[in-house]
Amino acid sequence: MECVIRNGTVVTASDSTPADVGIEGGKITHIGQGLGPAAREIDASGQYLFPGGVDVHTHVDIELMGHRSVDDFYSGTVAAACGGVTTIVDYALPEAGQSIQGSVDAWEEKARDKSIIDYGIHPVILEPTQQIIDEMADAIAEGHTSFKLFMIGMARFDELAADYLKVMAQAGKHGALTNIHAEDQCLIGYLCEQMTTEGKLGPKHFPDSRPRESEGLAVQRAISMAKYAEAPIYLVHLSCEEALAPIRQARAHGQIIYGETRPLYLHLSRERFEEPDAERYVGWPPLREASQMQVMWDGLRNDNLQTVATDHCGWNLAQKKAGKTVDELLPGMSNLETLIPMLYSEGVSQGKLSLNRFVEVSATNPAKLFGLYPQKGTLAVGSDADIVIFDPRKAVTIRHRNMHSRADYELYEGFEITGWPTHTLSRGEVIVENGTVLGNAGRGKLLKRKRFTPL
Amino acid sequence: MECVIRNGTVVTASDSTPADVGIEGGKITHIGQGLGPAAREIDASGQYLFPGGVDVHTHVDIELMGHRSVDDFYSGTVAAACGGVTTIVDYALPEAGQSIQGSVDAWEEKARDKSIIDYGIHPVILEPTQQIIDEMADAIAEGHTSFKLFMIGMARFDELAADYLKVMAQAGKHGALTNIHAEDQCLIGYLCEQMTTEGKLGPKHFPDSRPRESEGLAVQRAISMAKYAEAPIYLVHLSCEEALAPIRQARAHGQIIYGETRPLYLHLSRERFEEPDAERYVGWPPLREASQMQVMWDGLRNDNLQTVATDHCGWNLAQKKAGKTVDELLPGMSNLETLIPMLYSEGVSQGKLSLNRFVEVSATNPAKLFGLYPQKGTLAVGSDADIVIFDPRKAVTIRHRNMHSRADYELYEGFEITGWPTHTLSRGEVIVENGTVLGNAGRGKLLKRKRFTPL
Amino acid sequence: MECVIRNGTVVTASDSTPADVGIEGGKITHIGQGLGPAAREIDASGQYLFPGGVDVHTHVDIELMGHRSVDDFYSGTVAAACGGVTTIVDYALPEAGQSIQGSVDAWEEKARDKSIIDYGIHPVILEPTQQIIDEMADAIAEGHTSFKLFMIGMARFDELAADYLKVMAQAGKHGALTNIHAEDQCLIGYLCEQMTTEGKLGPKHFPDSRPRESEGLAVQRAISMAKYAEAPIYLVHLSCEEALAPIRQARAHGQIIYGETRPLYLHLSRERFEEPDAERYVGWPPLREASQMQVMWDGLRNDNLQTVATDHCGWNLAQKKAGKTVDELLPGMSNLETLIPMLYSEGVSQGKLSLNRFVEVSATNPAKLFGLYPQKGTLAVGSDADIVIFDPRKAVTIRHRNMHSRADYELYEGFEITGWPTHTLSRGEVIVENGTVLGNAGRGKLLKRKRFTPL
Amino acid sequence: MECVIRNGTVVTASDSTPADVGIEGGKITHIGQGLGPAAREIDASGQYLFPGGVDVHTHVDIELMGHRSVDDFYSGTVAAACGGVTTIVDYALPEAGQSIQGSVDAWEEKARDKSIIDYGIHPVILEPTQQIIDEMADAIAEGHTSFKLFMIGMARFDELAADYLKVMAQAGKHGALTNIHAEDQCLIGYLCEQMTTEGKLGPKHFPDSRPRESEGLAVQRAISMAKYAEAPIYLVHLSCEEALAPIRQARAHGQIIYGETRPLYLHLSRERFEEPDAERYVGWPPLREASQMQVMWDGLRNDNLQTVATDHCGWNLAQKKAGKTVDELLPGMSNLETLIPMLYSEGVSQGKLSLNRFVEVSATNPAKLFGLYPQKGTLAVGSDADIVIFDPRKAVTIRHRNMHSRADYELYEGFEITGWPTHTLSRGEVIVENGTVLGNAGRGKLLKRKRFTPL
Repeated sequence: MECVIRNGTVVTASDSTPADVGIEGGKITHIGQGLGPAAREIDASGQYLFPGGVDVHTHVDIELMGHRSVDDFYSGTVAAACGGVTTIVDYALPEAGQSIQGSVDAWEEKARDKSIIDYGIHPVILEPTQQIIDEMADAIAEGHTSFKLFMIGMARFDELAADYLKVMAQAGKHGALTNIHAEDQCLIGYLCEQMTTEGKLGPKHFPDSRPRESEGLAVQRAISMAKYAEAPIYLVHLSCEEALAPIRQARAHGQIIYGETRPLYLHLSRERFEEPDAERYVGWPPLREASQMQVMWDGLRNDNLQTVATDHCGWNLAQKKAGKTVDELLPGMSNLETLIPMLYSEGVSQGKLSLNRFVEVSATNPAKLFGLYPQKGTLAVGSDADIVIFDPRKAVTIRHRNMHSRADYELYEGFEITGWPTHTLSRGEVIVENGTVLGNAGRGKLLKRKRFTPL
Repeated sequence: MECVIRNGTVVTASDSTPADVGIEGGKITHIGQGLGPAAREIDASGQYLFPGGVDVHTHVDIELMGHRSVDDFYSGTVAAACGGVTTIVDYALPEAGQSIQGSVDAWEEKARDKSIIDYGIHPVILEPTQQIIDEMADAIAEGHTSFKLFMIGMARFDELAADYLKVMAQAGKHGALTNIHAEDQCLIGYLCEQMTTEGKLGPKHFPDSRPRESEGLAVQRAISMAKYAEAPIYLVHLSCEEALAPIRQARAHGQIIYGETRPLYLHLSRERFEEPDAERYVGWPPLREASQMQVMWDGLRNDNLQTVATDHCGWNLAQKKAGKTVDELLPGMSNLETLIPMLYSEGVSQGKLSLNRFVEVSATNPAKLFGLYPQKGTLAVGSDADIVIFDPRKAVTIRHRNMHSRADYELYEGFEITGWPTHTLSRGEVIVENGTVLGNAGRGKLLKRKRFTPL
Repeated sequence: MECVIRNGTVVTASDSTPADVGIEGGKITHIGQGLGPAAREIDASGQYLFPGGVDVHTHVDIELMGHRSVDDFYSGTVAAACGGVTTIVDYALPEAGQSIQGSVDAWEEKARDKSIIDYGIHPVILEPTQQIIDEMADAIAEGHTSFKLFMIGMARFDELAADYLKVMAQAGKHGALTNIHAEDQCLIGYLCEQMTTEGKLGPKHFPDSRPRESEGLAVQRAISMAKYAEAPIYLVHLSCEEALAPIRQARAHGQIIYGETRPLYLHLSRERFEEPDAERYVGWPPLREASQMQVMWDGLRNDNLQTVATDHCGWNLAQKKAGKTVDELLPGMSNLETLIPMLYSEGVSQGKLSLNRFVEVSATNPAKLFGLYPQKGTLAVGSDADIVIFDPRKAVTIRHRNMHSRADYELYEGFEITGWPTHTLSRGEVIVENGTVLGNAGRGKLLKRKRFTPL
Repeated sequence: MECVIRNGTVVTASDSTPADVGIEGGKITHIGQGLGPAAREIDASGQYLFPGGVDVHTHVDIELMGHRSVDDFYSGTVAAACGGVTTIVDYALPEAGQSIQGSVDAWEEKARDKSIIDYGIHPVILEPTQQIIDEMADAIAEGHTSFKLFMIGMARFDELAADYLKVMAQAGKHGALTNIHAEDQCLIGYLCEQMTTEGKLGPKHFPDSRPRESEGLAVQRAISMAKYAEAPIYLVHLSCEEALAPIRQARAHGQIIYGETRPLYLHLSRERFEEPDAERYVGWPPLREASQMQVMWDGLRNDNLQTVATDHCGWNLAQKKAGKTVDELLPGMSNLETLIPMLYSEGVSQGKLSLNRFVEVSATNPAKLFGLYPQKGTLAVGSDADIVIFDPRKAVTIRHRNMHSRADYELYEGFEITGWPTHTLSRGEVIVENGTVLGNAGRGKLLKRKRFTPL
């Protein structure tokens, strides 16, 4: 046997088992008592073995609103690996007029020589022309089995709604999942214009420019569209009860819908916008009232939300502060490295999520939904040995100086948490060990994903 | 005293009072016991005195989808008066590029020399440009205190949603009520296209092309838009629970919203589309499942709906049958003359509405909502003597040959009902007596309406 | 003509009409312009004429929890008349083993020589035996067409639920309306016991002993019971959204249900329990969060609530403060005199209710629901001349010293309001004029009420 | 190694893994590729390995309404094992005045020498006296960590509701889960009495005697009681949307609630009551409209329901037909043997449940909720080797002659399904092999269960 990890507790979405894990050829081959011996043996006494995190919502290297994000696929995936994420699925944003394959190729070009972990690509559709719709089947056949739509102005959603409905229908027909950013273009546009006119410009005013009702309305509309498109949908970065209520209702009546939330909405609330440099906290949708944090935790625990993903997008503070009006504030922030430790510490340690549900929402469900399972997302015989050895008792104060993203500030600066990875393995290779990065740039591979099947 | 109507029961939205009614100068001056004597005395023993019906949703003389409706303001208002309607508010559809004043003038031109009853005009807005928005204040000052928006393709609603939101806000700011046709353009467009592709062309398929969910979604969207526009709205021709549920919710939370239904949805259901010449029944939205008829009656009784109006639009059967696909079927039909008798017979006689509520939804509420009260919509001292003397025991079989619209078919052909007007008075003048039309073309006047106040 | 009231504005549930009102034989005989002359003429220039208030929820002279209330039918009805209430319906509480007729007779005995306004009696049922159920038909035939049930411990509701269901069914079958005090006995009993054990004894803790959820649950249960009993119900003194939501839902689905609220929940909120002598504010259910005040106003405006009634029960402060534990705090307070002026000032003047809706909920609806209409509850030809002449501009600071109840404190002490009656007429007789009581004890008559018909 | 099962697909609530399973000392010790050799080797090529079913709702040997059920713990557990169930938790019904320990001892006495599989015992509480409440802590300490309450007449729930609330609170305080049969005693009692009076006696009338609304109301009441008791609850045998809707709502707001359904409501609907001998289908609650079957499947898939359990209770047809009125019809039926095959065939094969969710609801969740995990309910290293080898392609026509319960009829007679166990192992011992029972009476052991922890 090439490698055995001994004496840890193997955690899956269902089980927590004290057992050894044996690895050969980059894959898990045995789970049992007293395995071995092996060429390399790692002692994991007192530690958890988690399947590596699968973050299906990242923007590692992107240009947005005239700014280029600070991470490339090296710094971004190093941050991921150091935090226990072993797979990302990044969104390929097309240039004007670009084909789907063109956008995927351009994205792979960015990642190929840099990524230290495996990665998939979701094509984004910003121009729902018949030609693009026709290209979808090929992209799916190539293993890109999800597409993203934005219900907001940058995608001219209101104008092109009927065409986007055809995108959903085509995705559903060919076995792909449609990811949707659900906020209402019309309400947001009106409110931003009003606020600008009234001189309400800074981050303090930002959350009122994109109210919870805007998110709820867009979710309802997406659900109706998906129903008639006969297509499954996946709603990204949900933040509030107004969004969850119609999802709950539609799921209870049999529609195939999934919801993602984001660490932002679990750990922070809108009072943050009263702080100095509050531009740091700007994301779309905004931080909500503190009451909504509990709503999100309850949603995660009770399967009204199926995944947590970061929407990672590393910016420097100067970029975040460049916008003059509420609609010019640059959304997104670096948070890949803290995804798993924050979710464990705030969720599992605080009794809000069971250990198994934590694994399910951070690894198993995202892998299953996006065609990566059972290669990724679990610790099972035959799966890739993407394993995080996690010390649940390690006390950590989050500091920007210890982070690996190139962003010049840290969202959770000063948060005191408990639990951090000691080793991260990707396909059986230890790529991070006690904070030292061992994996090489470019070792990560593009993942061809299977067609969608319901959870 | 010029006229006394003796021995009837005077019915208002609140009261049913055996009393005489005295009239002078076209207005009611006395309600009491033993009035008189008067120059003209009408005996109304055993009969009800209702305020004349106020139908705030008509398209008397219109061009739509390449067809000209068969009624003009003479035949249309004769039909109205014969059925007990003494006021209509008709929708002025603008030509491309036309100003609001231009469209109102054109509409008044059609009505001026023809109408035998008083009439108001609602401007329709199909091009929500800043210029049109700027014109709204003048139109309101001129007494046209309501505007209509269509959330469907003919108004390019999805594309121009943000501009329509500004229309609502402008109306709200200047004291006008925004009337909304709520069906979802995107869903309907997609479904019609699908059905055409699949060869589902005839009226049998029509109701599935505009599902209840489409109406519900549009209503939710209208409510959210109105909330942020801080404007009252009035949702026309609602047909189903999906539409009523969000209205109920929003009203219970203090939003100013009103709902109208239409005789179509109270008296008929979608099985009609299995009949020969089923194109007769096509309206937007379609006839729904029979269960929804009760939903509409319950909504009317419990104040979740405030008005009944006809959407009268007289067509000949050949026009109705000209469309080749589900989206080409011409919507609307003649039904002004039957509004009051059908509502009385099916509603009051069947115990679904109280006598007072019947008056409230057919006369008082529409008059109040659209700035016509107390001139119109009630029987009170000082109000116009627009009075219907109604014989509640008269058995009538509805026949096309007895109707006064120029349409060549009758929607309710063969229905047996109980109750019909014997006299219709407009401003104290008997304009219909036992089926004989006495009022002259052109005696009706354009009504300048007051600004909106909530019920 | 015996009496004419000139130049006022006659307000009904539907209309507001500048007109004179003529009275003969205690009844309104004419409404019109320039009436008269008459033996007595009252000038009401600048004033409103309202139908006298109909308060269908009073406990004027009652023994409860070992205390006797301080008002008798003289002081109670004087307070009523001074505030503009011309009819009350009081609850007859039976003694153990007493027949319905016995309890009604005992109640009439209290009222007969004392009341200065007309009054009805609702029998309360505390022992739902078969004998009592059998007696109901006679009581209804005698004109007592409503009965009250308590869903709380004093009525042993949980134990006898199945018998109370039969009471509802019997009432429904014979044309009576069942009034229900809806709070959940089991939850309240448990919470009171817990709080007593934990030493949470004073009024500060009182609202938590009877939570909103307890009221909501009881309302749901009452609705389900009424559905299977096939009986209409009237839910008294509702205080919160949890109670209104299921009513809204059931009404929308056709069930015959009505809701009453109480001035307490419109004008005050639970922060009052932090004040000294906060026992003053104790009622069942308790004052709620301030957010619920708006919920109640919206409910009244939108017809989710149909009536306002006082639950008047005059106590001295020492009685209110006698209880040692949260469940011993004596509920109820004097508030008959302020019902109409407070509702006008806080409701109509503040734009929360239209003038007509104010009349509807305080006079017309209660009269219609409880079989008193059209004798009471409106200003119409043929109705009793129970008329309040109301000066809408009179500024009043509410002071205990000006009130006519014998209670030794005033709930709204120091409130500054606008609007107060100048004259109160009962059957054409001026019984209060500018604060001077002119009506004699015993002039009020027991009202035999008609069977229930839906609004 | 004592035993290896080769070449099957190991299915857990999370994963489906082609792997061998190694067993020693009655426990699973290894899961991996190419295990062995072992003393006994079983080839499972083409077959699934499921954790043995855990049926937490059985009444194997019971006396009810004057009848003794036909199974004892031998025939009952043989039926279970033949169908793939390796653990049951049976309800111990106390005799009048019996202590909790007394009822548990009496129940164990029935099972001890007969059961061929391991079993737990839920004490039922029919007399919620303070003495019984005081005994609960000891019972929990002894490993009986769940209690059952009936909200119906046999438990005098309405009368004793406040005491039952204390039972919930005590259970919650000491770490036990309260199981609740939620139907409304008052509604059912009234309806049964009405139907008997009206001569509606037979099974055709049965479903109307216990309507969906009765179940929904009881669920709402249970939820409110549990909220104030601060206790987790588990609602048994849910059948309809009215029950699921309030659970969904409360779970989304963080309350700890779980729901169970029963094969009856997944596979059959109320038209069955039109068949001859329809007494066969009588259970509490009744079969519902066909639409509710889909509601139940959707609830299971989306985690609004967490378990499926049989409520097994074997009766002969003569016993089922003995009742004269709708409330005398004996509820329950034999269905332990078909639980797993029917759920697989109708659920997994028809695409209504994923393979993993099937395992979760039939084994893992019940084991976790009732303190049996990880000993029971999963296939993991260290767990009892309770394994079902399941042939997913085996076509079976269900026939009474092949069943092992002593009931003289089979609920699903003639149903054609696909999939059946070939081997059932309990603690590593093959107790059923291709339909031959190998396990001995009395080999099953009483399970002491751990305290409740949330899923």
